[in-house]
Amino acid sequence: MQRRDFIRGFGVSSVALGAAFGGIGTAHARTEYKWKLVTTWPTNFPGLGTGASRLAALIGEMSGGRIEIQVHGAGDLVPTYGVFDAVARGDAEMGHGSAYYWKAKSPATQFFSSVPFGMPAQKMNAWLYFGGGLELWTELYGRFGLIPAPAGNSGVQMGGWFNREIKSVKDLKGLKMRIPGLGGEVLARAGGIPVNLPGSDLFAALQNGLIDATEWVGPYNDLAFGLYKVARYYYYPGWHEPGTVMEAILNKAAYEALPTDLQSIIMNACKVVNQEMLAEYTARNPVALQTLIAKHEVTLRRFPHDVIVRLRALTDEVLTGLARKDELSARIYASYRKFQTQSQDWDEISDLADRLARDPA
Amino acid sequence: MQRRDFIRGFGVSSVALGAAFGGIGTAHARTEYKWKLVTTWPTNFPGLGTGASRLAALIGEMSGGRIEIQVHGAGDLVPTYGVFDAVARGDAEMGHGSAYYWKAKSPATQFFSSVPFGMPAQKMNAWLYFGGGLELWTELYGRFGLIPAPAGNSGVQMGGWFNREIKSVKDLKGLKMRIPGLGGEVLARAGGIPVNLPGSDLFAALQNGLIDATEWVGPYNDLAFGLYKVARYYYYPGWHEPGTVMEAILNKAAYEALPTDLQSIIMNACKVVNQEMLAEYTARNPVALQTLIAKHEVTLRRFPHDVIVRLRALTDEVLTGLARKDELSARIYASYRKFQTQSQDWDEISDLADRLARDPA
Repeated sequence: MQRRDFIRGFGVSSVALGAAFGGIGTAHARTEYKWKLVTTWPTNFPGLGTGASRLAALIGEMSGGRIEIQVHGAGDLVPTYGVFDAVARGDAEMGHGSAYYWKAKSPATQFFSSVPFGMPAQKMNAWLYFGGGLELWTELYGRFGLIPAPAGNSGVQMGGWFNREIKSVKDLKGLKMRIPGLGGEVLARAGGIPVNLPGSDLFAALQNGLIDATEWVGPYNDLAFGLYKVARYYYYPGWHEPGTVMEAILNKAAYEALPTDLQSIIMNACKVVNQEMLAEYTARNPVALQTLIAKHEVTLRRFPHDVIVRLRALTDEVLTGLARKDELSARIYASYRKFQTQSQDWDEISDLADRLARDPA
Repeated sequence: MQRRDFIRGFGVSSVALGAAFGGIGTAHARTEYKWKLVTTWPTNFPGLGTGASRLAALIGEMSGGRIEIQVHGAGDLVPTYGVFDAVARGDAEMGHGSAYYWKAKSPATQFFSSVPFGMPAQKMNAWLYFGGGLELWTELYGRFGLIPAPAGNSGVQMGGWFNREIKSVKDLKGLKMRIPGLGGEVLARAGGIPVNLPGSDLFAALQNGLIDATEWVGPYNDLAFGLYKVARYYYYPGWHEPGTVMEAILNKAAYEALPTDLQSIIMNACKVVNQEMLAEYTARNPVALQTLIAKHEVTLRRFPHDVIVRLRALTDEVLTGLARKDELSARIYASYRKFQTQSQDWDEISDLADRLARDPA
């Protein structure tokens, strides 16, 4: 997924959610800090934009209004891709987006969104909070005067919408697909043509044949976007994004100027949103999927085995190349890889075995 | 798992973690509320007891010391199984445990810990937070003057330790196994003899042949307990507890007397611990499993297919019976079942398909 310019598809508005909580519920409430939060999403975009608003609201609520955070949707104060720089400069104290949007700053940022054939949400949280991942991320963003925090997860995404069947690796050759980041690099190595298009253009681009396929997020978001009207096949699994982490970014100086109770409130609000967003997608995707199939007669297809095997091999090449780019990228890749490998045996006998035990066969 | 009397295996101490945060970090901090938190775990029991302490610490930290929570480990102020009543009476404002400990109060409590062949952690969170589960739980506990909140998850547990191989359903006949709750009821229907023993007695009971098998938690906790010394086979999957929810319980009157900012801090601290504990188990179980296998030469075994099929069928009987006990149990079962069923198609093409795509075959 990559939501740049999706803005155009939604009304862009700035919502002062924090303000709604100022003065409520505690006798000694007073606004001590007025902060701006800039996001890469429109404020009302389901799951993601609402996640950023929820974050601001929670901070207002827990602080009894001592921090009031005004949320600015994508393109309001700054362009979507200006969020990182705006928070680094201090034009806004806080941001919400996803780390792979900043790969031009450092390719290593991509490890903190989602890695093709990488770790899903629960393992990402384990790596970030208890496996050294967040320390590495903090080191990386510290170079830009920023502090990162996981603040949302989409869960496993879908493989995307295709106007034709993918029967073998050969069908990827020349395939024009809108797919950003590492997934796009992998597709290019498979002979495909990754295209980067604004979300608002996807519908028209598929309809007029400019592209053959596009990925977006998952049933809950894809249904709202109406892509089933212009592409027949809906592919799984979302090999390119098995559990995309959303981030909060904080201006380091602004954060460090806060008393520690407010610092704690902010960091813990991020943790709450991190869990809630995943729970929301986990609850809403199944319902949306049923609507897509029963009402809109979408044709579900699994990527053929040889396609998955090929994409996985190419992913290894892309990741190895990424790890060679600089010293910190190498360390992050090593940490990520070690954690993923280490958890495989346990995963096999716990989550996978448990899941298969529920199958009625 | 069921940890009653595990106390004896650990030093029982009461730790005033909240106090450590009083007065730190904010100029206007002052203790406004002194609360007691009683837990069903020893305060230093890894993952669980430390989760309860973490909850108290977080509340102290985010409130800038306005609430100071003193944690009392199992058996300190009240016995392990006295936690529910103590909080209902107001002897303590808050508790930490797991809902199936209170099945004598209402059999429906068991749906809020873990259900055999039921939903794992991520889906439980989705059901609780976005599928109506927490509303039902709140209704149930409201009858006792309590408010519940999810506050931890063990992830998928292990099937347990056995002194002999389980080759078919026949081997369950006469098997004396320490296994509590719904899992125990299912084993009894399969001809086994569920035994309820204090955790501290498990080692000796296995050693002297009083029991043939026991379940406990998972590698991280089981390794610490040393059960590998007295039972050769370590079975998976933990069909009886696929993702056990820990709970915080609040005295309703005490909670409602708080200003809304402190209420929000408490509820959000529960959410943070809910996520962190799962992440901790997800990170630490793989490492402990490797130690068990490589260092202690534990023999891992998967339950045979016919055993799983039989236990699953018996689980349906037990759950159907449970749902008939009263009107609220019936509604909770219906909600749980509907949510689980509804998410199956999505699970198949997202988490399961994604997981299988990572297999190198």
